[in-house]
Amino acid sequence: MHILVTNDDGVQAPGLLALAQAVRDLGTVTVFAPDRNWSASGHVKTMDRPLRARQVTLSDGSPALTTDGAPSDSVALALLGVVKEKIDLVLSGINPHENIGHDVTYSGTVTAAMEAVIGGVPGIAVSLNSPEEHLDPLDYSTAARVARRVAQKALAGGLPEGVLLNVNVPYLKDDEIKGYAVTRQGLRLYRDELDARKDPRGKPYYWIGGDFPTGVIEEGTDFGALKAGYVSITPLQLDLTAREAMERLRKWEW
Amino acid sequence: MHILVTNDDGVQAPGLLALAQAVRDLGTVTVFAPDRNWSASGHVKTMDRPLRARQVTLSDGSPALTTDGAPSDSVALALLGVVKEKIDLVLSGINPHENIGHDVTYSGTVTAAMEAVIGGVPGIAVSLNSPEEHLDPLDYSTAARVARRVAQKALAGGLPEGVLLNVNVPYLKDDEIKGYAVTRQGLRLYRDELDARKDPRGKPYYWIGGDFPTGVIEEGTDFGALKAGYVSITPLQLDLTAREAMERLRKWEW
Repeated sequence: MHILVTNDDGVQAPGLLALAQAVRDLGTVTVFAPDRNWSASGHVKTMDRPLRARQVTLSDGSPALTTDGAPSDSVALALLGVVKEKIDLVLSGINPHENIGHDVTYSGTVTAAMEAVIGGVPGIAVSLNSPEEHLDPLDYSTAARVARRVAQKALAGGLPEGVLLNVNVPYLKDDEIKGYAVTRQGLRLYRDELDARKDPRGKPYYWIGGDFPTGVIEEGTDFGALKAGYVSITPLQLDLTAREAMERLRKWEW
Repeated sequence: MHILVTNDDGVQAPGLLALAQAVRDLGTVTVFAPDRNWSASGHVKTMDRPLRARQVTLSDGSPALTTDGAPSDSVALALLGVVKEKIDLVLSGINPHENIGHDVTYSGTVTAAMEAVIGGVPGIAVSLNSPEEHLDPLDYSTAARVARRVAQKALAGGLPEGVLLNVNVPYLKDDEIKGYAVTRQGLRLYRDELDARKDPRGKPYYWIGGDFPTGVIEEGTDFGALKAGYVSITPLQLDLTAREAMERLRKWEW
């Protein structure tokens, strides 16, 4: 088994190392991740400039590849041949914050797993529902063990074609986790606010600010599972068709 | 009615101007678009740096706003208050190439419309299925009239909540268009290939190259409609849950 590990926080992020270390005994692990943070940068295919790929060393001394492209570019480059050996599974993470509800199309962690599926390889995104405020460093050990378990299941059972898994792990110790819940994508409530400022020359600039997003706590959703202390496993697809809306639109007189 | 017009090709792109001009008689039109091309840059929320917004003049002499953020940032900034007046509809385009199948999560044109829906405003993305090779300039007139008609329908009939429209227009004259088809998202076939090169100092770099993507021509899909000469109107949602996969995953022993 050959597992590609990537993320959207950059190749030296502790969550990536925790993930890579957790799955090393499942097969060959290749780490290939962006050289900088790409959070909330979406699903990217870089075609207007060439991309670099170079070797780096992770903090445990193991080798990794890094690129100046986006998380999804890392996956595309690996699958297109920068990594010579066939890849059986792409793991993306561990993101320090959860990726639930509408986060999934923004998230570099999730879109890297989307890119895997488009390339015909199973993809799993793993994110940690860490508290908004915490004393560094975050403890990724539970999430890493969860990721290993989900990866094992996916390698053994096979993922449905065209489906990626979006895994979110509560910030709890192993024995505090209530279990695993297969969930649907919930509803995010963003609380973005415009923070308009003036630069030293009096010209306006804008931060997208506001409070950390919340979500609708509902049973059966990613958000509900996390709140109840469960690992949330949401199968996602790349067909966004709103089927229920089709009939209504057909009634419009075209 | 107040319509926000944006795109992913940059504020001076001819497709944007054609779109803005086509809907001016439907209400107040504000143009707010990126200052550069953001094709295939995905769904972005820029939070690690502040964004600028400034006035520019389009080639027909009309005023517009531009930002150094992504297409989805333009929409977020406008809805958060950089544009003072309430916005009733967001139109994104006209993209010179179709956005069908898996293109939708990569596409700046489509993700700008996604951002509108997340902000609670109807969003419509409009793309032109132009030939791969053509003599410049492209003729956006048919697509602009189609966009106007779809915008009118959406303003009159209302879009289902949480749904955006992904509109793709064949490159035909008005009287050659067969009609309007409400479609589902089809299947893209990417033909990306790695183009590995050496720089003048002998170091490797990589282009994501290969042929222009094709797709599976199937009745009822965006791709099928375009091939048959119809305007394709695909309702899209932001809930990516693969519902059919949920039962299968629940059978795994967690």
